[in-house]
Amino acid sequence: MAVLPLLSDEEASAEALAVFNDIREKRGIDYVNNFWRALAHDPDELKSVWDRLQTVMAPGALDPLVKELIYIAVCATNGCAYCVHSHTASAKAKGMTPDMHAELLQVIAMASRTNALAVALGVPVDDRFEAEVAKKGE
Amino acid sequence: MAVLPLLSDEEASAEALAVFNDIREKRGIDYVNNFWRALAHDPDELKSVWDRLQTVMAPGALDPLVKELIYIAVCATNGCAYCVHSHTASAKAKGMTPDMHAELLQVIAMASRTNALAVALGVPVDDRFEAEVAKKGE
Amino acid sequence: MAVLPLLSDEEASAEALAVFNDIREKRGIDYVNNFWRALAHDPDELKSVWDRLQTVMAPGALDPLVKELIYIAVCATNGCAYCVHSHTASAKAKGMTPDMHAELLQVIAMASRTNALAVALGVPVDDRFEAEVAKKGE
Amino acid sequence: MAVLPLLSDEEASAEALAVFNDIREKRGIDYVNNFWRALAHDPDELKSVWDRLQTVMAPGALDPLVKELIYIAVCATNGCAYCVHSHTASAKAKGMTPDMHAELLQVIAMASRTNALAVALGVPVDDRFEAEVAKKGE
Amino acid sequence: MAVLPLLSDEEASAEALAVFNDIREKRGIDYVNNFWRALAHDPDELKSVWDRLQTVMAPGALDPLVKELIYIAVCATNGCAYCVHSHTASAKAKGMTPDMHAELLQVIAMASRTNALAVALGVPVDDRFEAEVAKKGE
Amino acid sequence: MAVLPLLSDEEASAEALAVFNDIREKRGIDYVNNFWRALAHDPDELKSVWDRLQTVMAPGALDPLVKELIYIAVCATNGCAYCVHSHTASAKAKGMTPDMHAELLQVIAMASRTNALAVALGVPVDDRFEAEVAKKGE
Repeated sequence: MAVLPLLSDEEASAEALAVFNDIREKRGIDYVNNFWRALAHDPDELKSVWDRLQTVMAPGALDPLVKELIYIAVCATNGCAYCVHSHTASAKAKGMTPDMHAELLQVIAMASRTNALAVALGVPVDDRFEAEVAKKGE
Repeated sequence: MAVLPLLSDEEASAEALAVFNDIREKRGIDYVNNFWRALAHDPDELKSVWDRLQTVMAPGALDPLVKELIYIAVCATNGCAYCVHSHTASAKAKGMTPDMHAELLQVIAMASRTNALAVALGVPVDDRFEAEVAKKGE
Repeated sequence: MAVLPLLSDEEASAEALAVFNDIREKRGIDYVNNFWRALAHDPDELKSVWDRLQTVMAPGALDPLVKELIYIAVCATNGCAYCVHSHTASAKAKGMTPDMHAELLQVIAMASRTNALAVALGVPVDDRFEAEVAKKGE
Repeated sequence: MAVLPLLSDEEASAEALAVFNDIREKRGIDYVNNFWRALAHDPDELKSVWDRLQTVMAPGALDPLVKELIYIAVCATNGCAYCVHSHTASAKAKGMTPDMHAELLQVIAMASRTNALAVALGVPVDDRFEAEVAKKGE
Repeated sequence: MAVLPLLSDEEASAEALAVFNDIREKRGIDYVNNFWRALAHDPDELKSVWDRLQTVMAPGALDPLVKELIYIAVCATNGCAYCVHSHTASAKAKGMTPDMHAELLQVIAMASRTNALAVALGVPVDDRFEAEVAKKGE
Repeated sequence: MAVLPLLSDEEASAEALAVFNDIREKRGIDYVNNFWRALAHDPDELKSVWDRLQTVMAPGALDPLVKELIYIAVCATNGCAYCVHSHTASAKAKGMTPDMHAELLQVIAMASRTNALAVALGVPVDDRFEAEVAKKGE
């Protein structure tokens, strides 16, 4: 189903192969998944995404697993089947239990339901939600 | 900007007013935000959403604040301005710090970027991501 | 909030004005709403949309009001605030009652909820749903 | 393609199996489609969705077939392939003719076209569309 | 995966077959792709889409290849896998090089990323961006 | 309408102010638009987006104006009002004429229309569109 062939290690450029090897080292497994092999046609974008991804998904004020759950929520809402599959796998690898997965799906379903209602009703933003902003001027 | 007028306590039906009062009691504030006042034109849907929302957003395998962050991710991806505003306010009330907010936005931005690439490249789902499912048959 | 100024009758080209006047005649009111005045910068697209719209929304196997309800469902899902407002007004003009509006919103909310779940669960299409197609070959 | 294995009757919990059996009884067929078998990992959400679905899709101010057409419009706009397939099957079972299906697709296509234009033009909502709301204050 | 069987030349109506033949003649190849064969169940919509498509995608102020790139951007954002595949093929046929494809993907990824941020931050439109409209009144 | 207050030069951190000043220098105008002022709450993300944006939108295999048109197509499809406004302004500054704008909107509308049809019809991807990939194995 790919628009571009997935590049093997042999077909990838030296710059792309270096990213593949960095992925292997950082993840501690030999497997490089399809997303990176498709993106390898553009080594600059490959490197830019991989570098930024590591920064963004690293531990910080939020836990790495929490970040994966947020990631899955975006993927489901965008309707990206590949992304849902790969990040559900990532989340499991980082400790997502079946109960956590179930609650994640419940929140996604509830948000989708209320979002649709809010848009279809044209609900105006409450002044109260803008209060803090107003205090600082704008 | 509302499609339907927001109902005041006086304009709401008895059933809708009971939900308004339950919202006040559970949240410990007198303010009932616009979403509920717009939804009050359909007291059954109002009650169904409010009841399910409490169950879904309650503490469980996931922390209530984590649930709010996931909720915001769906709202942002759906492009629902009202929903982003109201749930950003909820998340702050539940303890979201500026650092957590910043990291939330980073994850949403990163997921949106990789989702767009995965779709535009038509990346096929890796067999590996389906392995566990295959083991159980289907 | 417009990206392009809304064209008055005086500012519109002869071809655009002819469409404005056709809208007035067909709808039996003098008012030409903002969508058409913004689209008037491209008289060809204006005429193409207006002409096709009349064909598509005319009575047929489906009732004109049913078509408006379907139209609103698309607008809400796309998050197009303008479109939700203008077609809710159209639907009311064609006989949408408050009860019908409430049920429309319920269906939109339910579909949004189950869509999010189906995507986040990666549910494969049942063979049964493809049976009729298979019979005919493909 | 599933993210979670589809649960057979034997694998489902007692609570989930009870929902499966209710689906069988209400629909008068033995087949339980994939969506419910995937959702069965969370029996509470399974029951919540199934119960609300029956209420929402029951005859009311809108005909059940009309509700299915609206449902399909949301599914198509969300790009949910599973949902489009299952609800197109439901709509046929409830009497959707080829002509009705064709007109449904025409409305979905027209709404998508005009939605894209309205957003890209940033068309402001007409005061007229807010008139009724304004009358009631807000 | 089709919801409706794809119609062969023999199964298509005379009106639909005429469009198939026009597609063959204009494109100079015998192959008629699946989209048209699925749409052939509604010959009027088939003809309306095909006729308008030729007008819209013809050389004008924008080059036909540029139009294909814009088209792909919409397809990727809508998450329409079929559309991404067919229009990537069209763009290649009109001269899209691997470098152009790579840059197209970069822009789509960048726009998706900044869009998600702008929505999640609720950024208000700058007065400056509306200045030209204001000058003309509205 | 902002979720976070827009930061003035005085309120921004030294790192954010450095980005503001780089924006001013590269664009040759003093004005820093709202998106950057909202993003300034997270100076790392601000710098990451601004740096990558310049690389992605620079002349390459595609012309900078073509890149802006693609960008607008994504913004319109995502329903991001702010983004449509700011990038329409950018495109005008880079030479977009009214005729080019009109044709851009036509392509966006046509793609939205056919995308909706392709999804609602569940059109399977043509083997032909995957031929080149198959040749290379995968």
